Amino acid sequence: MENSYKNLDETDAFKQLCTLPPVMDMNTHLTAELVQTAQVPMGEDLTYNYAAKAVDEAILATLQRLADEMAVVDQYRELLGGAVMNGSEQRKVLHHLTRGQVGPIVEWQGRDLGSFYVTQQQRVADFARRVHAGEIRGSGGDRFTHLCQIGIGGSDLGPRALYLALQHGARCRGSQFMTASFISNVDPDDAAQNLANMDLATTMFILVSKSGTTQETLTNETIVRHALQQQGLDPAAHLLAVTAENSPLANGEDYLESFYIDDFVGGRFSSTSAVGGTLLTLAFGAELFAELLAGAHQQDQLALNSDILANPALLDALIGVYERNCLGYPCTAVLPYSQALSRFPAHLQQLDMESNGKSVNRYGQPLNYATGAVIFGEAGTNGQHSFYQLLHQGSDIIPLQFIGFRHAHGDDGLNVDGCSSQDKLNANLVAQIVAFAKGRDSEEPNRVFAGQRPSSLIYAERLTPRIVGALLAHFENKVMFQGFLWNVNSFDQEGVQLGKVLTQQLLTGCTRDAVLQGYAAYLGVLQP
Amino acid sequence: MENSYKNLDETDAFKQLCTLPPVMDMNTHLTAELVQTAQVPMGEDLTYNYAAKAVDEAILATLQRLADEMAVVDQYRELLGGAVMNGSEQRKVLHHLTRGQVGPIVEWQGRDLGSFYVTQQQRVADFARRVHAGEIRGSGGDRFTHLCQIGIGGSDLGPRALYLALQHGARCRGSQFMTASFISNVDPDDAAQNLANMDLATTMFILVSKSGTTQETLTNETIVRHALQQQGLDPAAHLLAVTAENSPLANGEDYLESFYIDDFVGGRFSSTSAVGGTLLTLAFGAELFAELLAGAHQQDQLALNSDILANPALLDALIGVYERNCLGYPCTAVLPYSQALSRFPAHLQQLDMESNGKSVNRYGQPLNYATGAVIFGEAGTNGQHSFYQLLHQGSDIIPLQFIGFRHAHGDDGLNVDGCSSQDKLNANLVAQIVAFAKGRDSEEPNRVFAGQRPSSLIYAERLTPRIVGALLAHFENKVMFQGFLWNVNSFDQEGVQLGKVLTQQLLTGCTRDAVLQGYAAYLGVLQP
Repeated sequence: MENSYKNLDETDAFKQLCTLPPVMDMNTHLTAELVQTAQVPMGEDLTYNYAAKAVDEAILATLQRLADEMAVVDQYRELLGGAVMNGSEQRKVLHHLTRGQVGPIVEWQGRDLGSFYVTQQQRVADFARRVHAGEIRGSGGDRFTHLCQIGIGGSDLGPRALYLALQHGARCRGSQFMTASFISNVDPDDAAQNLANMDLATTMFILVSKSGTTQETLTNETIVRHALQQQGLDPAAHLLAVTAENSPLANGEDYLESFYIDDFVGGRFSSTSAVGGTLLTLAFGAELFAELLAGAHQQDQLALNSDILANPALLDALIGVYERNCLGYPCTAVLPYSQALSRFPAHLQQLDMESNGKSVNRYGQPLNYATGAVIFGEAGTNGQHSFYQLLHQGSDIIPLQFIGFRHAHGDDGLNVDGCSSQDKLNANLVAQIVAFAKGRDSEEPNRVFAGQRPSSLIYAERLTPRIVGALLAHFENKVMFQGFLWNVNSFDQEGVQLGKVLTQQLLTGCTRDAVLQGYAAYLGVLQP
Repeated sequence: MENSYKNLDETDAFKQLCTLPPVMDMNTHLTAELVQTAQVPMGEDLTYNYAAKAVDEAILATLQRLADEMAVVDQYRELLGGAVMNGSEQRKVLHHLTRGQVGPIVEWQGRDLGSFYVTQQQRVADFARRVHAGEIRGSGGDRFTHLCQIGIGGSDLGPRALYLALQHGARCRGSQFMTASFISNVDPDDAAQNLANMDLATTMFILVSKSGTTQETLTNETIVRHALQQQGLDPAAHLLAVTAENSPLANGEDYLESFYIDDFVGGRFSSTSAVGGTLLTLAFGAELFAELLAGAHQQDQLALNSDILANPALLDALIGVYERNCLGYPCTAVLPYSQALSRFPAHLQQLDMESNGKSVNRYGQPLNYATGAVIFGEAGTNGQHSFYQLLHQGSDIIPLQFIGFRHAHGDDGLNVDGCSSQDKLNANLVAQIVAFAKGRDSEEPNRVFAGQRPSSLIYAERLTPRIVGALLAHFENKVMFQGFLWNVNSFDQEGVQLGKVLTQQLLTGCTRDAVLQGYAAYLGVLQP
């Protein structure tokens, strides 16, 4: 099987797909009836609606054939079964196991990897209980009330997005045990500003680096250890490590506790491993985190359906490929109508662009078609007062992914002018979908909206921890399926390596001068 | 003059521009010598460097001819002189006057508008002094120590980005007088979560809406007034209004104080008016805000130079048009290597996409060329661990705008492995520019970097308030010049109006039900 993965443009279905007549007028396409039928359940109380996508039955049927011809669900099964799907790094891809057993048990070096992840989770849960009970305290004897995660990239964006997504809801249901902040950037202002706002005596730091060699994270660890010592606190009593068992950080003595991950869970897919789980369990308790995992697990199971109308992640992926490769759209905007999801687009930006921003296939051959799109977005209604102008009337068409909820985390807000804040939020959401699709004619040319802007809508009753997990897994699986369709390795990131190598040369090979002098000097060094 | 604005593609210079041979190999183009010469001073200690842009002397000469042929500096002079440059709304465009007199005095209805803006600024400064001195206190007798800005779009993004840009530096120099938070979204969780984290007795709210009719802002005002009353506090003693003199909010009795703006300063260009100035002056003092204004004013003066090599905003605009319209690039990434600028890209996203995301020219005629690009970005080094993979190895080329500083706001960080955090930050910055331009060959195809990714670099010694103001104005002026080049009205935003109209229909015309029911019901209402 391994050498049989096809390129997208080698398939009959894709060749046919781009010759099908496109949906020409969304104004007639998008009807009240279609809204009721053009949707896929994502488990109880969560739905993927594609009524406002420019796909009709002929296009959908061809997308189904494309999925079948490329055997993308079989590829997912291979991945679940422990195949080396990250070929360039010779690694399995096992993040699904961090939230449950979807496929067979995967063993490696005599270890059941699923139970390895579960064990780490249980260790975190036990540890969190002792912290919340006040059994584990800071070196000055204070209870820990605050967390600070030190990590970058996948060790920061996913956990941070999930923390923000869960925080207000957790507080409303009385399960916020600790608050959290984040140090990621090597910019010294990031650590300095965070430290200035913290009571170190009550803060537990979670140091996250799989390799244990991330420059930014190790630098910030040293700064934090120094700050703790300056206040007479013992760093070893305030720092946790989340790392691989074979990393230089896997050194018990320097840390209060260590939790482990392995090479089969990539950074951007690690939010449900100890990378996100340590922070989220300490902040909100093991029960809430278990709900999140259950929500993610359910999406992982749905992703096994070979019928694309019963597999929302696959359908979403296929429509995205149609938009990217047949219609030629270069970007996708993610627009959650929920302030709690304010950093979810930033996480998806990494997840998607780092996974599928590739130009060679899994055999290293150059590709003749576009792969990953630019992903960006902000929470609605904020985005409406910002970049939506271009989305409505700009010269390029940008496909949209809306996310909405019937109710807020807390109450739905005061009734002002006869309706609650949440009513207003949702009226805006629905109005935007309709405006983007249908547009508007006007006598005044600058008030004409061409419409024909396709969007999908994922909606639920409320952004519970289960739904947060489901959203996370939905997009992870969408990105995975798109990688299969484009025939790229979605699980490596060689594009970040060159910068690291050059940075190291700069730090060792030339003087550290003002920005321009460093720039010029470095080019001088490079010149023959 | 008014009917003489040309479309970009009607000019001889543009027709020639796209036929010039492009810079084929950035590997040989980008040299240490070029880094020293391919730059434009932006006043003392700030420089725009375009060595890593794919432009040579022939292209630059043609860009100069394009600027001359379209008379873009003359158009800027017209704007400064009070011409109605926002034609669709029949408004002048006067945000430059909020930071100084660049052109002639502009009078309107017998009033010198420049001195109107200055007067508002002085009123804010006087007010802030009395607050800082404890002369003005909350209704419970407490000193005000915290600010909460209630606004959305331009009343939120710019002020928030500037607050974050200035905060750590202000603290380091001892001029942070008050802290600040922001309520923007109509999502009730935004207000609820913010309010839960505040001591209302010591909080001053700044309500910002030029029209006084912004749905989100008025709804949040009601929520805040209710919360204050619930705690026995008098809302009129805790709320400021920043609004137009003819707005429904311009009602002294309900507010502790009101500061005014007018229709000639658009929301996304209003950061240096009372919209941003009230918050920033209260937070950091009048002196610091005056430095910011001086930095912005200096860029406004530089933008008068007709020589594009002495006009950094114009050169930046022209290179962007070359990349967009001759090379066909659909996006631009903004990458500040400074955590303090973490939300600056979100502000630029509104500034640029809302201004130039247009499809008709200033006479309402459809355009046959691309206008505003998608703008996105995050602070470096964070972005390196996220979407840079696609920037390096994705199938599309995305032009890049780097911003860097020799020193941090505070100290440059501990020496770890022989160099400070700031050294590491800058080594990363320079390494990325070089990696994007020059790429790398490799035996392993997935480790090949094609290079040829163009970038510019704006750099300074330190992110002082003056430099923050300069960066803000640079990008405002760049966006303005690009609007002139594309012959669009950069100062209206009809694309946000349709959503507002449809939202209102939804809130009045159909039941406020679950998201899907609202969606379907609304489409049912729309159907004939």
